Amino acid sequence: MERPAIVLLSGGLDSTTVLAIARDQGFTPYALSFRYGQRHSIELQAAERVATTQGAARHVVADIDLRVFGGSALTSDISVPKHDSVEQIEADTIPVTYVPARNTIFLSFALAYAEVVGATDIFTGVTAVDFSGYPDCRPEYMDAFATMANLATKAGVEGKTRLELHSPLIDLSKADIIRKGLSLGVDYSITSSCYDPDAQGRACGHCDTCLLRLKGFAEVGIDDPAPYQNAGA
Amino acid sequence: MERPAIVLLSGGLDSTTVLAIARDQGFTPYALSFRYGQRHSIELQAAERVATTQGAARHVVADIDLRVFGGSALTSDISVPKHDSVEQIEADTIPVTYVPARNTIFLSFALAYAEVVGATDIFTGVTAVDFSGYPDCRPEYMDAFATMANLATKAGVEGKTRLELHSPLIDLSKADIIRKGLSLGVDYSITSSCYDPDAQGRACGHCDTCLLRLKGFAEVGIDDPAPYQNAGA
Repeated sequence: MERPAIVLLSGGLDSTTVLAIARDQGFTPYALSFRYGQRHSIELQAAERVATTQGAARHVVADIDLRVFGGSALTSDISVPKHDSVEQIEADTIPVTYVPARNTIFLSFALAYAEVVGATDIFTGVTAVDFSGYPDCRPEYMDAFATMANLATKAGVEGKTRLELHSPLIDLSKADIIRKGLSLGVDYSITSSCYDPDAQGRACGHCDTCLLRLKGFAEVGIDDPAPYQNAGA
Repeated sequence: MERPAIVLLSGGLDSTTVLAIARDQGFTPYALSFRYGQRHSIELQAAERVATTQGAARHVVADIDLRVFGGSALTSDISVPKHDSVEQIEADTIPVTYVPARNTIFLSFALAYAEVVGATDIFTGVTAVDFSGYPDCRPEYMDAFATMANLATKAGVEGKTRLELHSPLIDLSKADIIRKGLSLGVDYSITSSCYDPDAQGRACGHCDTCLLRLKGFAEVGIDDPAPYQNAGA
């Protein structure tokens, strides 16, 4: 019998690895991405490629427009911060790329999708190592969401099922994530993690996610197969 | 100093009363409605009328399309159940008008809006009396959402603020809600609660919400001033 699971898929390195992990654990992945007013569609193109080639049963792109509320680098015109090395990223502050309540909204949609397809499992690419500074990426937040979710649905109220949030990357470094993905046959050349890619989808190499990703591949000892604006940046 | 509060506003009897209560408690109401694939725009027209005439500082309509997931009477083509009296509504079952994770999604957007306008208070029209059968309208669900929400935001993590969910109708019967609203000067003639109004916005008089609303006005001893398809139904 099929065991459906919702996988939040941005098309980046982390969520692509999570899709492979869900499949490896015997789940049938239903991928969910969002069109949320982000400035570029490169990441949605990557999500589509990943869903098609990495074994998702279905891929839904939900439209949500957070721009009606205003305020964040990812959805308005504030410039994306660029650095030369990982050390320059201020780990303890919340980045300007923070989008208000974004993960709460994303997980809420995942909850709706789970109920419709009869899934009781939701996979996310949240990590606690390489801490991103987003409050809604922490384990205590994820636990609280699961508690709330189990009170929100017909199945939860009737005691028939118990929704589970899986964060299989939570304790992994970027290098560990890459090693795990490679062992499961993930093709990282088709993923896109950059906050500020060019029109051809090539990564900038200097935003926070690019720096963390490049550091991860360097630790693994292989080149990142994804395209960059300055090869070898 | 202004005390902003987010008010979830459907344009129905309950949320319109809540808007008046928030204003009466000294808050500046920021109204939030949703275009979520519902079959009629009558309720959004009502929300707009209410926001304009009942003292909202601003009214935002967020677009969310739950139809990508499928499955519910309010967002697809299953027919709305009709009855002749309140007694025929089966109180212990979850109605087919249930929309998966709807309140979780609505509250998530309220959370984003609250963060953007600097509000720490969110008002909803959830009631426990006249129990609607929706799992995500119960007090224990609301409490769990607030706990999660306080772990989700910059302000919550930094311990600067404490988000509060207000459900001022939670212990009130429909008649009590109407009495409260009338005492605050609410004009119920411009509200719309019906699941299945006609093109002119006139209520059907026989869906669950119409029956509960009519029973409430009957208990107060006055006629519902809103338009019905069969006057006096």
